Amino acid sequence: MKNLKYISLYESERKKVNKILSVSVKNRKPASLYEPSSYILNSGGKRLRPLLVLLSAKAVGGEFKSCYNAAAAVEMLHNFTLVHDDIMDNADKRRGRLTLHKKFDHNTAILAGDSLLSIAYEYLLKDCNGNAKEVISSFTHGLIEVCEGQSLDTDFESRKNVALSEYITMIKKKTAAMAEMCCRIGALLGGGIKAQVNALGNYGLNLGIAFQIQDDLLDISADEKEFGKTIGGDLVEGKKTFLFLEALEKSRGEDRKKLLRVIEQKGIRRNQVSSYKMIYEKLGVLDDARREIRSYTQKALRSVNLLDEENKKIFKWLADSLIHRTS
Amino acid sequence: MKNLKYISLYESERKKVNKILSVSVKNRKPASLYEPSSYILNSGGKRLRPLLVLLSAKAVGGEFKSCYNAAAAVEMLHNFTLVHDDIMDNADKRRGRLTLHKKFDHNTAILAGDSLLSIAYEYLLKDCNGNAKEVISSFTHGLIEVCEGQSLDTDFESRKNVALSEYITMIKKKTAAMAEMCCRIGALLGGGIKAQVNALGNYGLNLGIAFQIQDDLLDISADEKEFGKTIGGDLVEGKKTFLFLEALEKSRGEDRKKLLRVIEQKGIRRNQVSSYKMIYEKLGVLDDARREIRSYTQKALRSVNLLDEENKKIFKWLADSLIHRTS
Repeated sequence: MKNLKYISLYESERKKVNKILSVSVKNRKPASLYEPSSYILNSGGKRLRPLLVLLSAKAVGGEFKSCYNAAAAVEMLHNFTLVHDDIMDNADKRRGRLTLHKKFDHNTAILAGDSLLSIAYEYLLKDCNGNAKEVISSFTHGLIEVCEGQSLDTDFESRKNVALSEYITMIKKKTAAMAEMCCRIGALLGGGIKAQVNALGNYGLNLGIAFQIQDDLLDISADEKEFGKTIGGDLVEGKKTFLFLEALEKSRGEDRKKLLRVIEQKGIRRNQVSSYKMIYEKLGVLDDARREIRSYTQKALRSVNLLDEENKKIFKWLADSLIHRTS
Repeated sequence: MKNLKYISLYESERKKVNKILSVSVKNRKPASLYEPSSYILNSGGKRLRPLLVLLSAKAVGGEFKSCYNAAAAVEMLHNFTLVHDDIMDNADKRRGRLTLHKKFDHNTAILAGDSLLSIAYEYLLKDCNGNAKEVISSFTHGLIEVCEGQSLDTDFESRKNVALSEYITMIKKKTAAMAEMCCRIGALLGGGIKAQVNALGNYGLNLGIAFQIQDDLLDISADEKEFGKTIGGDLVEGKKTFLFLEALEKSRGEDRKKLLRVIEQKGIRRNQVSSYKMIYEKLGVLDDARREIRSYTQKALRSVNLLDEENKKIFKWLADSLIHRTS
């Protein structure tokens, strides 16, 4: 019953955020700029970042209505990163549709990304009052971290040796810092005191790390039908994920040679995925990943211990949902 | 004497801004992100936008030191637009050096541009206090206008008919809105009242329009040595500048056919430039451009009539310098 309550809350808030996102670029001109923006903003997505903003505001005694625009802003910022990352990765598909630069062209995608970021600030400002400086600083810090994370991620592609600790630094910046920021600005806009803002920020950060490792885990262990993509895509692309780097650190002999080949050849063939999955299983890195996910999730939950019971429950539900997600 | 005083003020303030810009990306990591940013920030440039910020703060009784970070921020924003525009235009050179995407690569340039924008906000925030919301709104509005202006400019490339009025709208957004924003945030940070902020904003807007038309004029009429580039580049590239569109609106018969060929063939050969310049001269569009530049400059100067004599003089000097520039 509890879960259903939260799921229905999530669904109804998601619809409201989607509405704001849809309206945000409607009737703006030139169409050459805003149609592509509209294309990506209306392409679905979990809208988890807006949810973090809203729940954090509520957790400190604020109301959802204090931060709907900010909730939309973080999703715009997220979509800005997706558009530019997809260009850099030369990705074809996003959320089951053509990526923006494939649907339109490179130049349009660069500019639409820039524009999404500018409108993100516009929307964030709508909800800012006395604490504008703090809220926008937090948002800007999140943006800087994302850029640095993306740059590290790109660096990793051409590097032979990447330590697991470097990988954690990278996902902290590329993924988790934004979740942290969402919680911080929600708490700030909801009128939270410093301790609450920091606590919720910490929740977001640790949940973000758990989320990314879960992403890596799903890529090799998910049920293909539920996942919606072919299993092992990260190995095929030669990505240095948590599982791959953990495997590399634990492996010896033949297994190590085989793993090193993924780096040298910048990926493997689709039909080799199952043999690599067997190495992962033998080395126990799937369990290692599960343990890390649990550990970061518990850290996230400990940091919101200062909240009241009702709010703790909802953050617990959110963390559980993310751990048990199948796509 | 007066001029020398202003020129020396400009030079000394430019050095201070350059110092902030240089430090802003020094020692940041990863190097893969900040070395390219440093490359563009340390590539020279007139630093006119920072000057507008500083002079506007002073004009309302504020001090330069209230807005050095903001002055650096507008230059970072400007450099962000240069980096992304150069990718879109596939430009090879900028300020006499390789463009960022040629020196590094496309992906690096996209990300370095994004990063410059993020640090621009970081620096702007440093100077924001009570009026953070207003200052950042103004900055963000300027950014949105630049994106829209760039999109219109791209649209014009593939359009056969562009009215002169549409061109003015485009340069207002792409160039003048940022000059307006610089004056507005300078005035805000200097503690100006609403009437002063609006007046200085208006100065920036009109000066920005004059500046862009002057840019178009210089491209065909400058002394090549002083200009530093070959004359007629805009015609070679088939750009729909003020002069070209004015010529198109005024021309009939053979001249019109010849001008339309520039659109159809997306540019002309270098050795055809002088014959097109003759058409421009015959139609009087160089004088038209000069008249428009004077008209917008006078409009700019009228709008700062409320300032004291000393400040009016410096804004007059700046406008005159821009009109009489040779490159």
